[in-house]
Parts: sequence; structure tokens; C-alpha cells
Amino acid sequence: MTQTVLFAAGEARWPSYEPHLRAAFDAAGLDARLVTSCPADQADYIVFAPGGDIVDFAPYTRCKAVLSLWAGVEKIVGNATLTQPLCRMVDPALTAGMVEWVAGHVLRHHLGMDRHIVNPARDWNPEPPPLAAERPVTILGLGELGRACGQALAALGFPVTGWSRSPRTVQGLACLSGDDGLRQALDSAQILVTLLPATPETDSLINADRLALLRRGAVILNPGRGTLIDDAALLAALDTGQVGHATLDVFRVEPLPQDHPFWAHPKVTVTPHIAAETRPSSASRIIAENIRRSEAGEPLLFRVDRARGY
Amino acid sequence: MTQTVLFAAGEARWPSYEPHLRAAFDAAGLDARLVTSCPADQADYIVFAPGGDIVDFAPYTRCKAVLSLWAGVEKIVGNATLTQPLCRMVDPALTAGMVEWVAGHVLRHHLGMDRHIVNPARDWNPEPPPLAAERPVTILGLGELGRACGQALAALGFPVTGWSRSPRTVQGLACLSGDDGLRQALDSAQILVTLLPATPETDSLINADRLALLRRGAVILNPGRGTLIDDAALLAALDTGQVGHATLDVFRVEPLPQDHPFWAHPKVTVTPHIAAETRPSSASRIIAENIRRSEAGEPLLFRVDRARGY
Repeated sequence: MTQTVLFAAGEARWPSYEPHLRAAFDAAGLDARLVTSCPADQADYIVFAPGGDIVDFAPYTRCKAVLSLWAGVEKIVGNATLTQPLCRMVDPALTAGMVEWVAGHVLRHHLGMDRHIVNPARDWNPEPPPLAAERPVTILGLGELGRACGQALAALGFPVTGWSRSPRTVQGLACLSGDDGLRQALDSAQILVTLLPATPETDSLINADRLALLRRGAVILNPGRGTLIDDAALLAALDTGQVGHATLDVFRVEPLPQDHPFWAHPKVTVTPHIAAETRPSSASRIIAENIRRSEAGEPLLFRVDRARGY
Repeated sequence: MTQTVLFAAGEARWPSYEPHLRAAFDAAGLDARLVTSCPADQADYIVFAPGGDIVDFAPYTRCKAVLSLWAGVEKIVGNATLTQPLCRMVDPALTAGMVEWVAGHVLRHHLGMDRHIVNPARDWNPEPPPLAAERPVTILGLGELGRACGQALAALGFPVTGWSRSPRTVQGLACLSGDDGLRQALDSAQILVTLLPATPETDSLINADRLALLRRGAVILNPGRGTLIDDAALLAALDTGQVGHATLDVFRVEPLPQDHPFWAHPKVTVTPHIAAETRPSSASRIIAENIRRSEAGEPLLFRVDRARGY
């Protein structure tokens, strides 16, 4: 029987996703009708991203799953009208892109590149940086992205500590968990990478108290979620020198407003939410696989646990 | 008995070496007095690098060994006044440092970081870079350093082509050799890394003809030797846009003269010969180990054979 798949992920994404979704449906042997609008009670599946126009999921009575194109689902997980199974995106290309962003910016700060990239004084100061082995990195969050980034950094020689709320083991990383573990993980960090999901528990996790635990002059990279950081506390820590630099890819409001102090701060680098972009080709294959699974009565991939929020 | 160790490796290195040497001496259990000057006949050991001010070693009558911080000792091995045992530096950290510099600058250019690091217009343009898998990198030179860099880049997802004059096989790299292979290796490159030795054959290997083979807008990284590149040809290729950027760590004259056009060129980044620098921490451990060996009557590490010259 033909399945109606409603693309509700924003008009801007449609041209890049349409051909990839159709190809992925064909490759998965699905009998699917891909549409950008239909009567609510006719949609079998919804492909979703913030920026689409569905706010009330209640009328989608036949919908068997809402399939997010985003890894982070915090913008809909609390929507009380959303009672259908919800799956987040775990895109192998997204993970690769995140690893590249994190490895690149860790190495940038580790090597002190900025003083060479902008050097109007023509300063020749042949002081080499320490080796990666002497630069402890801490990653908060050991999900798919945190694990992949941690292992890539470990392969480059950095001593990597990973932290997660509940205990985890990741090959090559020193893993800590819980509140005591968090203190210990921050205490040793010269570079801190925040890759936690946005939940009520992680909102402003990086606050003044926790920033004070870092090694003086530590660098913060946030490619995770804008809510993880207390912006005012970070700015204060940058001004005292407790934090040496912050490179931020995600913000509480995006695009980052033109008058936000992060733009003007000499110790802040803003990247425009590019660290983990879902790629249409690989994401479409995941969407197709989840529809196939649903139709075959198999468990969905990457189904969101509503209680945890991710 | 206290050993007097004279640091004669240049004032500029003293601040970075002092703490590491002291720590290494402590860790090795040495009773050593580390100084930057002393009467010549009181020095038990000399830590040496070109740039220090010892020209005549004859007055150092008590000196038990001259311990070079450089791997290459060609600048002192022919000094007739130097009759004390001479040790060169073999720093295991040098390869690691090169891999970090190369991986860091490849990722910097791949991710287009510079436009975020310097962004006075507060431009928010969320266009993600391609994935590493879509960015071919070519490495010229498959010695110890070229192989290690190529494999690190391959592990990060870059398709890496390696070239050497005579055929070689390196796991994970597409290897080419000879003149035809060189043309093919340059033809496919979006990022070119030059890690060849300085020989008459490699002088100005990267000339106008070969720059013209690169993909338009390609980036050049030279952490190898300053002589590999025809500076004028590179500047011309940067001006036409054939080469998009050059990040150079080595130069025909070092420090790079203040009036050299590389300093002022907006598409050139100068790093001050730091890609493969002996590291104070690891080098200090080797210096300390050699002093310990000398005091214990054990053979010195990396002692130079005057007949061979290294």
C-alpha cells in the first residue's frame, strides 16, 4: 500500500532533499508518495525540521512516525500534541562534519594559529606549541558525536577525557560521569568541547562556578547547543582571563543577533551553525530505512526517549 | 657533586627551555646547576644550538659533553675547537609536531576558518564546507614526516595522494612517483603539502609550470624546506587566483626578512619555522638522560661520529 510521506522541514530544504529522498525511497523498495502538503489525516510519515509549519501534531491521526532531519529534537520533544513516535537524525555525514570542525578548531587553538593568521607586526617568534600529548581536552557528552570527536582527537595524540551523565566506556578516552566526575573533567581541561543535548538539566550547565574549575586560560568550543552555556558568565570569564578563548557554533538565538557581545569580543570566534549540518544524501537514506523498518514492524532507529528528551 | 650545565642555545629559547630542563633534571635525580653564563672552565655540560654565542669551545676545559638541541649538527661538527663529545638531538616529538601542524592547517583551510576568525562585518552565512572526503590532498615527499602526515589526514577522511621520486607504498594513500606521477599528483590537488628534503633536484620544484597544474584556488602548505618553492612564481599564482592561499613555515632566509612580500600578502600566512621544532619538554628529557648517562659512565645517546658528520 502506498505510504504518504509529508515533507514538513521547510521550503528552503525541499529542493536539496526532494531528489535524494525519492532516490532513497526507490533504493529501499518503498511504495511512497512524497508530498509537501496533504490533508493531515492522510500523512503516514512526517519528515520534520524546525522551520516547517507544523505546530499541532494532533490532526495527524494516521502518522506512524515523525522523522527529524535534526540530531537535536529539543524544539519538538516537549510539544504535547506530538504523541507519535519521534526519531532524531543520526547522519554519518553529520558526524564526519562535526569531527572535522572539532578537530580543526582544537588544533587551531592548540597551535595558536590566530596569531599567525593575523600578524600585522610581522612578528617572528619561533616558539613552538606544546605537543597534543601535553594538552588535555575534555568533551562533555558521549553520544554519537562526542564519542567520534573524542576518538579522533585521541588519534591525533590529545589526552581526552569524556564526560556523560551516566557511566559510559569509550575506547581511547578517560571516561567520567555524574556530578563528581564533571568537576574532575573540568578541572583537568585546557580545551573544553561541549556536545551535550539541550535538556532542562543541561541548560547553562557551563556557568560561572563550572568555568572557574577550568585551567586558567582554557579554550571553550561549543558546537553542541546554545543553551549549554550561560552567555553572561562566559563573557565575564573571558574578561578576567579565566577563559582564554571561546569558539561558538551554536547560540540561544540564531542567527546570532548583530548586537550580541559575542560578535565584538576579541576572544570569541563565531561560526554560523555549520559544525553539524545534515547532508541530504545520507540523511535521506536514514529516513527511508526508518520507513522501511516501520512498515516491516521492526524497531525504529534513533527513536527519542521522551523522558530523557533525546 | 653538583654539575654546572651551561645553556648556550640562544636567549630566545631560554624562557621556554628553563622550566622543562629544571623539571627533567629533577626527574632524572640530577644534582645540576642550570645557568646561562659561567666562567668557561666551570661548565660541566653545554646545551647548544646555533644562535648561542659560543664560537670557541677550547676554554671549556671541564666540559664533558656538548648536547645539541638540533638534529642537524652541520653548523658545529666542523668546528676544530670542539673536541668534547658532541650529541645531536633525536626528538621523538618532532614527527608528532609536524602531523599536528599539517592536520591543523589542512583543516583550517578545508573549513574556511579564516573568514570566521576575522569577521568584522559580523557575516552569518551558514553554508557548510564540503566534507573532507570531497577535498583531495596531495603530499609531496613520503619520508617519515610525509607518511605520518598523509596517514593522519587519511584518518580524518581526506583522500590523500602521496608522491615521491622513487616508488613507495604507504597504507591508506594513493602513491605516485616519477615525473608523470608528479603531474598527476598536482593535477588532483585542492590542498598541496610539500615535505621534500632540500636537495639540488628539489630546488624550486614548485615553479610556475607546476603551480599551473593545481586545481584553481588550491591551497599550498610548505612545512618542508624554503627552497622547494619559487617564491616569485608563488606570488604571481596567488595574484592571479590560481593559488588561493599559501601557509608557509620555512623560507629561503630565516627569520623571513621584514620587507619580504610574503609578510604583506593577504593570501599568505607565515608561521615562524615551528612545524617541526624540537620540543623543550621532550628535548629536555633527552638532555637530562644524557647527563645522567655521562655521570653514570654509560654511553651517550645520539653521539655524533665526527668522521661521518652526524
